[in-house]
Amino acid sequence: MTYCVGMLLDRGIVMVADSRTNAGVDNISTFRKVTVFQRPKDRVFVLMTAGNLAASQAVVNLLREASAEPAPAGEPPRPNLFDAPTMFEAARCVGEAIREVHARDAAGMTAFGLEFNVQCILGGQVAGERPRLFNVYPAGNFIEATPDTSFFQIGEFKYGKPIIDRVITRESSLEEAAKCALISMDSTIRSNLSVGMPIDLVLVRTGELRVGHHRVIGAEDEYFGTIRNGWGEALRNAFKALPDPDLSG
Amino acid sequence: MTYCVGMLLDRGIVMVADSRTNAGVDNISTFRKVTVFQRPKDRVFVLMTAGNLAASQAVVNLLREASAEPAPAGEPPRPNLFDAPTMFEAARCVGEAIREVHARDAAGMTAFGLEFNVQCILGGQVAGERPRLFNVYPAGNFIEATPDTSFFQIGEFKYGKPIIDRVITRESSLEEAAKCALISMDSTIRSNLSVGMPIDLVLVRTGELRVGHHRVIGAEDEYFGTIRNGWGEALRNAFKALPDPDLSG
Repeated sequence: MTYCVGMLLDRGIVMVADSRTNAGVDNISTFRKVTVFQRPKDRVFVLMTAGNLAASQAVVNLLREASAEPAPAGEPPRPNLFDAPTMFEAARCVGEAIREVHARDAAGMTAFGLEFNVQCILGGQVAGERPRLFNVYPAGNFIEATPDTSFFQIGEFKYGKPIIDRVITRESSLEEAAKCALISMDSTIRSNLSVGMPIDLVLVRTGELRVGHHRVIGAEDEYFGTIRNGWGEALRNAFKALPDPDLSG
Repeated sequence: MTYCVGMLLDRGIVMVADSRTNAGVDNISTFRKVTVFQRPKDRVFVLMTAGNLAASQAVVNLLREASAEPAPAGEPPRPNLFDAPTMFEAARCVGEAIREVHARDAAGMTAFGLEFNVQCILGGQVAGERPRLFNVYPAGNFIEATPDTSFFQIGEFKYGKPIIDRVITRESSLEEAAKCALISMDSTIRSNLSVGMPIDLVLVRTGELRVGHHRVIGAEDEYFGTIRNGWGEALRNAFKALPDPDLSG
């Protein structure tokens, strides 16, 4: 499985993904789920994928190829991330890539009893717009984060959702958002074996139009260890500090 | 949906269930999911059910009828909770009741595209044994909590699992267990509309062979309000107290 969370804040975008894939619990591998597309001073996109690994990789490859290859002479340019005038059009490119992979592979997968499934979070900024965040569904349609919704999750989202619900708003700092995303990831990794290290943490600051920080967090990462131990201890202390119920009578 | 959690501790058993059922988000009702069977000084069982409401109610009714009606003359007594010599045999009674409902209703449900699904947590104590806790599957088979596992959850379990994982062991007091179960329920209710108040809290103290405390917790319950507000605030404070990551470079 996979767990990815993308957060849209006034100050930028924070994207965090694990790197575990599995075909059954006896076949676990490490594959990065974050891809960055950027042209400094013009645009930056961070794409995270969950679902079938083959389909996820195919989506990323189609997006790369469409951006790299010029259209044949006489044909209109293929829609691609680097020509998209807005983040909305970029999200459409991602949706179209998913549909293309579906058209190629879904029937073949069905013959083997497999279900086609790819879901993406696309965050970033195009010059002239503020940063935006999209959740692109397996059907290629998508939704955008609005002022009421400051984050999207894909994959194994439930274990890590309550903490984000409680602490993150659009006004949160990038540091708070990154800290919260790592706590959320830690809770998920503890409860679901099929989500695992290392973790990719990518952030884009509003207006910079490039990746501002990209860190790969492994099991030995000092800050993550602090969060992991500190959060468990803080929860236990908070739990102790709450009054016990009266169970008499 | 439903969320139920049962905890087995050295000092007894704590069982907590919500009371919401839904057939789609536009058809929500309140049905209690906890049933107590007891004969003081001899045995006490607390049964919680999740799954199709009709099937859950049928299971409870079959268990009640089997306990109430003597077998016809000349036939061996029907297996029932009040004749079960052990908790293991009581769990088999629950499994058999699930199988009987499956045999009656599953085909009819399939014709309407519905999937048969009932899962139960059975906790309690029979004189001569220590308290025991079972998780009975829709197939009628079941597992028992062992010293490594102090709780079972059924229904919408993910949102409320991390806190139990972190604070509950066999040595926890009944007060701690009840507090933790209510925090777990609060996190679940916040994240899943189909889990709702009131909450049933039932506890059985080791050796008492009867229900020691049964409380129905509604939206206006003072203690639950303290937990609900206090936990949210404690989480936010714990979050603030952890160091921020260094996102420079």
